[in-house]
Amino acid sequence: MELAGALQLGELAAAFARVPVFPLFDLGYFIVSILYLKYEPGAVEMSHQSPVASWLCAMLHCFGSYILADMLLGEAPIDYFSNNSSVLLATAVWYLIFFCPMNLFYKCVSFLPVKLIFVAMKEVVRVRKIAIGVHHAHHHYHHGWFIMVVTGWVKGSGIALVSNFEQLLRGVWKPETNEILHMTFPTKASLYGAILFTLQQTHWLPISKANLIFFFTMFMIVCKVFMTAAHSHTSPFAPIEGFICPVLFGSVSSGYNSHH
Amino acid sequence: MELAGALQLGELAAAFARVPVFPLFDLGYFIVSILYLKYEPGAVEMSHQSPVASWLCAMLHCFGSYILADMLLGEAPIDYFSNNSSVLLATAVWYLIFFCPMNLFYKCVSFLPVKLIFVAMKEVVRVRKIAIGVHHAHHHYHHGWFIMVVTGWVKGSGIALVSNFEQLLRGVWKPETNEILHMTFPTKASLYGAILFTLQQTHWLPISKANLIFFFTMFMIVCKVFMTAAHSHTSPFAPIEGFICPVLFGSVSSGYNSHH
Amino acid sequence: MELAGALQLGELAAAFARVPVFPLFDLGYFIVSILYLKYEPGAVEMSHQSPVASWLCAMLHCFGSYILADMLLGEAPIDYFSNNSSVLLATAVWYLIFFCPMNLFYKCVSFLPVKLIFVAMKEVVRVRKIAIGVHHAHHHYHHGWFIMVVTGWVKGSGIALVSNFEQLLRGVWKPETNEILHMTFPTKASLYGAILFTLQQTHWLPISKANLIFFFTMFMIVCKVFMTAAHSHTSPFAPIEGFICPVLFGSVSSGYNSHH
Repeated sequence: MELAGALQLGELAAAFARVPVFPLFDLGYFIVSILYLKYEPGAVEMSHQSPVASWLCAMLHCFGSYILADMLLGEAPIDYFSNNSSVLLATAVWYLIFFCPMNLFYKCVSFLPVKLIFVAMKEVVRVRKIAIGVHHAHHHYHHGWFIMVVTGWVKGSGIALVSNFEQLLRGVWKPETNEILHMTFPTKASLYGAILFTLQQTHWLPISKANLIFFFTMFMIVCKVFMTAAHSHTSPFAPIEGFICPVLFGSVSSGYNSHH
Repeated sequence: MELAGALQLGELAAAFARVPVFPLFDLGYFIVSILYLKYEPGAVEMSHQSPVASWLCAMLHCFGSYILADMLLGEAPIDYFSNNSSVLLATAVWYLIFFCPMNLFYKCVSFLPVKLIFVAMKEVVRVRKIAIGVHHAHHHYHHGWFIMVVTGWVKGSGIALVSNFEQLLRGVWKPETNEILHMTFPTKASLYGAILFTLQQTHWLPISKANLIFFFTMFMIVCKVFMTAAHSHTSPFAPIEGFICPVLFGSVSSGYNSHH
Repeated sequence: MELAGALQLGELAAAFARVPVFPLFDLGYFIVSILYLKYEPGAVEMSHQSPVASWLCAMLHCFGSYILADMLLGEAPIDYFSNNSSVLLATAVWYLIFFCPMNLFYKCVSFLPVKLIFVAMKEVVRVRKIAIGVHHAHHHYHHGWFIMVVTGWVKGSGIALVSNFEQLLRGVWKPETNEILHMTFPTKASLYGAILFTLQQTHWLPISKANLIFFFTMFMIVCKVFMTAAHSHTSPFAPIEGFICPVLFGSVSSGYNSHH
């Protein structure tokens, strides 16, 4: 009975890992990413005054993870833009969110229950990206542990890691902080996820990749949906970090976990 | 009679497209680019205090388009610097403009009628660069529409697109604005030109490349020479944009077209 | 007798050029580099609040030259991170310098006589890096004089050249100055060294590479050890520059040589 359950779970995970992310899940990813761009102060004015800059920002929000990962691995940063259908889909989402008459599209997708669905879809894409990033880096550098972790991290966090430069494109400059100095939950989770997927890829973690994708996606969905619904910024990693960090790095000041 | 005229025009355009840009037109490009560097406040002091930084700035002004395009396409950003003769020519122009005794060279080339000739030559190089940039991107990504446009744009605008970082090299930092947020005429024209050349390259625009180069060069020369002579910043695209933008992107605030 | 002396010196230089820099000399390089990171105001607080950012900064200080050179030559910027043993060694040094109980390790290595040994070792690595950088660039671009000089320079100076961005990672932003605008001694010496090694590589300087490495290393060690011991910032190049610069670039203001 338990074996059957395990088999079923394994099959479910394998089936889940085979589901293509384009176009449905990518759509959710683009919608949530560009929603967050619209939340930024000044983003709406910019979209009217300089549509090109606004479009570029939207593309960075949607494809920043590909740009960064390609850059780190020495490939063409705009390589992913050869996927015309993805870029067109992201452009359509950008146009609808910013310029739809009566703000109709924005109102629909930012309605909380609808938004939560898209948030969940975004996490599906994020975890898949981490897994592919680690796999891709492993293909180039078989023993490049650090490269695998960094590539997976960058694929999961995307433009957040270089948000200072994305802000600069919008004429905003906040040098006193950055995403690495004060990590938000998705960035931190991407880092831990990248470490897990690297351990899996190098056979130190005795679990199949499909299972890891499945469980890490579930974890991310639960966390992010809960955090979005509750407008919470409390990191679920806080208790563990509060235990480990003082041992490893001495006293952690109050600013570390509760900043964003 | 008309056929003969068309043939002659076609031959003229084809002959024009075959004229090499090095060294004559490149010389004009370097002179105008480094003139604009010298106009920047603080550039003359910097050239005395830190010749290396001044030379680097001059090189960015002259070869910024190659650096950026190579970076975007995943090639070595300093690849173009293997053209020793181009770099030496640009270095000579930089030296003469900044350090010529009695400022003689500067006075000669910034004399308006002379400068207008160089401005016209610069536009010849710019259009050729856009065409080559689009062609080069097409070679790498046969269906990468966005990549072709971006590469052509970057080849046409050059360092202007990342002027914030060029300024940073000179110790100047103006994060509140950038070239993409408030496009000047050459940047905007390069974008439109890159779109036209991309359409031509993918056979959506029924015109030969030589003809497009010829006509777009003429357009750019007329606009830039007129704008330089009249010290004008009025964009010739303003009427068309004033018509299209409100339809596509809602009300465009006054800041968009008249900023620079 | 003199011939024998020359032969012995040549053999000594050749033997010196064959000494591997990993792990001993690299260790010295990492210790001095991360010591300078710890001297930066705010670095210790950052190491407690955000160990990841601190670790990234330390890696930039240790491997910045590889990252920059790989970037310039169009290779993967994180390529060098596939050397797991180097990264682990640098990580261990970072951990010991920042988190060793009672600050013991820091106190030992920053004890002046000990530190001077590490400073000397760092210069051994620096000169070797310049030589390898020029050789590597020569391999890609046989006649790329400028590329050889720039690659060698970048390999010698490392992260100093883009210190503004390294500071940004720590939440510090000083746009009014940068390393190229006000070169410190190691940056300037790396530039001159890169020029010498480029001349050697292209057979304009009639000296063997081993000899050049040997003599330039000796020069760097003497200068840096003396400057570190005396807390001096006087550049040994000042007299020569004071003679050449006014001839080439007009009057050099007081700010040029004595700034850092």
